[in-house]
Formats: sequence, C-alpha cells, structure tokens
Amino acid sequence: MNSTIQLPVIRIKNFSRIESDDLIPVEEPLEIRLAHFAGDSYKVQNLAVTMRTPGNDVELAAGFIFTEGIIKSYSDIEKIEYVFADCSENRQNVIQVTLAEHAQPNLSNTERNFYTTSSCGVCGKASINAIRTVSSFNVGFSNHHKIDADLLNSLPEKLLQHQKIFADTGGLHACALFDEDGEISILREDVGRHNALDKLIGASFCENKIPLRNSILLLSGRASFELIQKAAMAGIEIVAAIGAPSSLAVSLATEFGISLVGFLRNNRFNIYSGDHRIKIKPNEDSY
Amino acid sequence: MNSTIQLPVIRIKNFSRIESDDLIPVEEPLEIRLAHFAGDSYKVQNLAVTMRTPGNDVELAAGFIFTEGIIKSYSDIEKIEYVFADCSENRQNVIQVTLAEHAQPNLSNTERNFYTTSSCGVCGKASINAIRTVSSFNVGFSNHHKIDADLLNSLPEKLLQHQKIFADTGGLHACALFDEDGEISILREDVGRHNALDKLIGASFCENKIPLRNSILLLSGRASFELIQKAAMAGIEIVAAIGAPSSLAVSLATEFGISLVGFLRNNRFNIYSGDHRIKIKPNEDSY
Repeated sequence: MNSTIQLPVIRIKNFSRIESDDLIPVEEPLEIRLAHFAGDSYKVQNLAVTMRTPGNDVELAAGFIFTEGIIKSYSDIEKIEYVFADCSENRQNVIQVTLAEHAQPNLSNTERNFYTTSSCGVCGKASINAIRTVSSFNVGFSNHHKIDADLLNSLPEKLLQHQKIFADTGGLHACALFDEDGEISILREDVGRHNALDKLIGASFCENKIPLRNSILLLSGRASFELIQKAAMAGIEIVAAIGAPSSLAVSLATEFGISLVGFLRNNRFNIYSGDHRIKIKPNEDSY
Repeated sequence: MNSTIQLPVIRIKNFSRIESDDLIPVEEPLEIRLAHFAGDSYKVQNLAVTMRTPGNDVELAAGFIFTEGIIKSYSDIEKIEYVFADCSENRQNVIQVTLAEHAQPNLSNTERNFYTTSSCGVCGKASINAIRTVSSFNVGFSNHHKIDADLLNSLPEKLLQHQKIFADTGGLHACALFDEDGEISILREDVGRHNALDKLIGASFCENKIPLRNSILLLSGRASFELIQKAAMAGIEIVAAIGAPSSLAVSLATEFGISLVGFLRNNRFNIYSGDHRIKIKPNEDSY
C-alpha cells in the first residue's frame, strides 16, 4: 500500500471552481497481533488497532511492543509479518509479531477488558496508575550530552526539507532523530503522531540501537505525555517540539531527566526541563 | 482542575536567556466508567482512559459514549459524576456514567480483550471490521442544507477569535459548530482532537440537540477518519477542516453523504465530497 493516494478534488478560490486531483495522505487501520509461547504452544493475542499511514509497518509493530514495555530486546522477536498477505482486501492491515520461544513478554497491561478511546496511546490501559510504562534506561543519569542552541535552531528547516509526504500532501505528523552534529539520521511520517514515533523507535530497535543516547528527537507538532514516555523508553535525552508541550509532558520529562524544548521555530525556543544540556552561547562550557 | 497551568520556562532567543513563566495546556488522564443495570444489579465497567484537558468532563463522557454508539438517547443517562470526588489526588480523573435502569447499552464493542494504541479513537476495537460505528442518522438524505463559499471562508478567523486556551498557550486542538448564518454556537478545545469533538457533541447531546443538522463543524487541524465518524454519529452534514483530510476521512464522508472541506484558509478551500451543499457564487441556486 502507498502512503499517499490521488483523489478528485474541487478547488475553490475567489468564485473560481477547478476540478483536479489532489494527493491525500493514506489512513488505514493496522491490527497488531502478538504470538508468544505460553505453556506448550503459541498463543495469539490482539494488541491494538491503530489508524496509521501504510509504510514501515514492521517498524511500527516493533516500536509499539517495545515502547509499550511488552518486550525489552530485539532478540525477543522471532519474526514480524503480515498475517493475511494472500487476501485481496486489507491484505496488509493485520501484522503479527511472533516472539522467540524464550521471550517472556510483559503482558500485565494487556490482559484487561478495556474499550477504545481518543487521541492517545494510553487508551485501553487498565487504570490511571498504569499509564506510566517503565523505562528500561536511566535517562536522567547521563548529563554529558550537550548541544548548542544554534544547532537546535537549525533542526526545523532540516525536518521540513526531508518531509516527503508532508510536502506532497500537507497532512502528516513527523518526527526525526538528529545526531550531535545536527545531521538527520532517521525521519518517519504518519497521520498519527504516536505511530510516527513508534516507527522511528522501532527502526532503531530493530537495529539494536537502543538506547538512543547522544541524539535529539524533533517532533513536528506538540509534545504530549505519551511521546515523552516513548522517548524515555528509547533512552532519548533531548526532545524538541515545534509546537507546545502539555503539562504532563513537562512533568514526565522533568521526572525522567529529559531535556524538553518547545516552540522551536523562527530561531527561538523555550526550555521546559533539563536546560543543563543546552549551551546558549557558542563554545560555552566546552566540557 | 484548570485547563492551563503556569510553569517556569527558560526563553532562548539570540543568545539571550530569560527565565519566566509560561502558560501550558493541562493534560491529565480521565478514566470513563459505565454503570448499567444488568440482571438485578448495576454493573460497573471501565470504558477508557483518555488523555484530556480538564474541563467539560461531563460532556466528554456523554459525547464519548454517544459517539461510540453505546447509547442513543440522552434519556438513557441517569447521571454523570466524578467517582472519587473526595480524594485529594486525581479527584477529578475518574468519571462515571450511570445509565437509567431501562437503558440497554450497546456493549458489543466493549467486551473485548484489547490493549492500548496510538493516536486514534478506534484503538482497542476488536477488529478492523468493527471500526465503523453505525450512525443513527441518515445524514446523506438531507440535501437542502446549503452554504455560501464566502461564509465558509469566514469561519477560521471566527474560530481563532474564540479559542481562549489556544490563544494563551498555543497548544490545543479546537472544534466549533457554526449555524447557517456563520454564527458560532459552541467551541471546545482539548489536547486531544477527538476529545474536543466528543465535548462538543456531548454538550449538544445533553441538550437533546442531536442530530445537528443545518450546522457546520470546523476542525482546527486535520480531518481524520474518526472525526468524520463522530460527526456522522451526530448528524452533522458539513465538516470543514483547516488542515488536510486523510484518505479514509474522504471515503467515510463520501459514504455517509457528508460534505467535506479541507485546507480552509486564506480564503480558499478544497471540497473532497458533497460539493452540492456549497454555493460558490453568491445567490447561486437560491432553492
């Protein structure tokens, strides 16, 4: 399946009416299933249905089960594959993560009887107390990673240059990982901001690159609680958002020792936590 | 609880570093519970945990159970109240909808064993085939509702004028309902776009104003599948988004006969479905 689709559109401007085609971002459901060895056989369990932009589905599934705390190591995964690859309809809308026999998934949050909910990845969790997935990494203890304010200021433009689907359609969230020199190492786009981040972290997870220390995560929109939680799971120490942070994003970043920057645009930004990692003046504190 | 909170922030611009305070949108979990009469007693069931901006929680809970198809009429509700109003912590983070004894909730989608998922309200649904909640109204059959392109063009500015929290914090999604004369009748803001719409529809639902025919729904961001589905449940015939629509939003709007407008800004817009309800030239087709 493609990430964009051409659809007929009527463009209206100043009483003019032009019929043409428009590139639209694709949104399709992806059902994520988990197969794990229980007792003497494999048990298959539905984990979630998420509305996502097709593409990088394997990464999305891997990132999802990792950032949700179900598995901790890539070696826990035997394979990830589409389940109904032969069906003509929805053939790439169900994906299954099969764990290795030795893997012991943490399913404490999955065996509940919950319903659906709105725009966030905590939906379905059993209770408010369960929304904090425990991070495997002590992000807060690594304080040597520092970056220049100038470098931060340069990131939004780089993100925009690399956002292919957004450029085509004007309609996707993006997140990107930059190294200490401000070079982009990976970028993912999706109709769902959480999916974009799961894809990014999933790609790194599949390459055994977790924890993602010494890197900067840039978010194209707002910084919500859940995005910070996923970043913490991946060991990311600096998160910068072009939009505003939420109150709970700030609390969580503070608690985990993550540096959180918001409103990064037009060569200015706000620091909400962890300002010790950001050098305001060039060559300040060359440590 | 408030919708915004003042937090310390360090503002960086051109090597200057100013410590001050910043108004941040509040994000807090809300657990929605349903109590319904089953057999000879009331059964309480967790429906969802959603990350929302506090405020209008009763509307949010009402809108959620209505747009999810669990109940059809406001008379099905006996009361909606916070459950732990006495606890000092999280005292307004659990809300319970108690149905009237006669009410027969449609829980077919709730009794599954699903997990959490990302940025959408379909998460937790049992399967891909179950993501379409059936609308109670035949939206598509009412074609007499027509509006001028000029009126549409005037809506984004009106939305901005009324967006209080966004103006303070730069960080919230909004949706608003306009009447045929372009007057704003209700506006709701939330960190979650789906919550904002549930609050808006919930408010109308609690006043027995559903179906919301002859009104225009304006979305501050993108139009996703789920927002169109909620609009359809409420009988809304015209949906305009300042951002892009997704492919599935266009399919669903077409299927339900909803007029879907995207990229409504700078006095231009695109029509993706149902163009018969939009008059391009003034006084065109005065029917």
